[in-house]
Amino acid sequence: LSGTFVEVARARIDPSDRGFTLGDGIFETIRAEAGAPAHAGRHLARLHQGATLLGIDIPFDDQTLHEAMCAVLAQNALASAALRLTLTRGPAARGVLPPTTTQPTILISAGPLPPAAPPARVIVCRRTRRNELSPLAAIKSLNYLDGILARMEAAAAGADDALLLNTRGNVAEAAAANIVLRVDGNWITPPVHDGALPGIARALLLESGAATELSASLATVQRCDAAYLVNALSTRKVAAIDGRDLDLGWAWPGDKIPRIETADERG
Amino acid sequence: LSGTFVEVARARIDPSDRGFTLGDGIFETIRAEAGAPAHAGRHLARLHQGATLLGIDIPFDDQTLHEAMCAVLAQNALASAALRLTLTRGPAARGVLPPTTTQPTILISAGPLPPAAPPARVIVCRRTRRNELSPLAAIKSLNYLDGILARMEAAAAGADDALLLNTRGNVAEAAAANIVLRVDGNWITPPVHDGALPGIARALLLESGAATELSASLATVQRCDAAYLVNALSTRKVAAIDGRDLDLGWAWPGDKIPRIETADERG
Repeated sequence: LSGTFVEVARARIDPSDRGFTLGDGIFETIRAEAGAPAHAGRHLARLHQGATLLGIDIPFDDQTLHEAMCAVLAQNALASAALRLTLTRGPAARGVLPPTTTQPTILISAGPLPPAAPPARVIVCRRTRRNELSPLAAIKSLNYLDGILARMEAAAAGADDALLLNTRGNVAEAAAANIVLRVDGNWITPPVHDGALPGIARALLLESGAATELSASLATVQRCDAAYLVNALSTRKVAAIDGRDLDLGWAWPGDKIPRIETADERG
Repeated sequence: LSGTFVEVARARIDPSDRGFTLGDGIFETIRAEAGAPAHAGRHLARLHQGATLLGIDIPFDDQTLHEAMCAVLAQNALASAALRLTLTRGPAARGVLPPTTTQPTILISAGPLPPAAPPARVIVCRRTRRNELSPLAAIKSLNYLDGILARMEAAAAGADDALLLNTRGNVAEAAAANIVLRVDGNWITPPVHDGALPGIARALLLESGAATELSASLATVQRCDAAYLVNALSTRKVAAIDGRDLDLGWAWPGDKIPRIETADERG
């Protein structure tokens, strides 16, 4: 927590921290393997993009952050883990406009990877839309309520996750994962300008050629025949969208998803 | 803080509080007069609406919350003040879907009212849009980053505030206030379905007949001849929008804005 090890039970966030009062901050969720963060350079690059957009100074250099992530893993005797790095603007007096100078808060924590899970039953979220017209859609900000509402709507419908449409009706992503759809035999994933978070695993897929960026309308979602969810922690096949069963008998692009273990193969 | 008085310097928010990790909560900013919250019933009703949307249980009844707000004012020897009541879902393990049961966090704090200020120079925000297609637009959630970006854009342009357009290009509100425009001699303010927060002072204006709900496109904003900003803490005339000077020589609707003191008359 901002440079020192603290037991969770003693770690204190100031009630005036703008991360708490206004969601004024960003975070990264990072898969750790063998006691080190995977794709740390990519995660830290995205952290910098978010910090630049919000005008928050990152109080440590990348090398120090990398070492701190490894130290948090070592301190907790974790090799494989879900790391989280949170950066907020820090404590400030009431008011929307940030003060000229603040002392940003940085918190690195680690916990177990999510448990293995069967293929996901997914719905299309009807309750809210992702705002691709906000630059926040392209960073991993602390403003997560639309995703929370979507996931709650999925749970209420007996589903595991929900796809968020953007304001024009194109699919953007799932509540906390990018979506990859097989349409006419091609694996496609929505572009960032449609509101997809530029996920790290997503970037690896695109660079490998295992998927292509393409806008997908609701009609396209309704005629895809296979799909999977992907984020930095796991990949997961989609069993059904809005109750329509999808093909599950396909092989993963294999080494085209480098270093991303599939949750449904872990179990 | 969740039922006990704590000095700010000792008050501790748990780093796993979902208010801090995901912006999973709501708040109210309330004007206090003579040691008591003004329009407390309306503010608490809106708090309940937000809590219902998010599925967060409010851990105290309204009477207790009202007494707690008065007690916070008394403890700090404040008569007129800006009260803030924050409600979050509370601490939880990693994950977007809220756990079935959590212990919500409730925090009541008080500070000085904002200082008197001259009429506001306002711009139309170009950097982001308010998402009227999300139900979050109608509650006062902790997801405040679009407003923060708008206010930062205003400050960078030498202005005091910014008007946010919604996804269809109608004006929704300012970064932390509702906007009232005089168009063709009528005072109008955007409807909630255009992304206006249902502000308490705004409701009082509408009920008094001092303003009418009407959608306002960017073109309408560009031809209004007077405007003011209004929230629970103050009202403020608008001197200019995007550098176009507005009429300042009009009289306030007077007793039609009950119990809302004007910042530019306080100075």
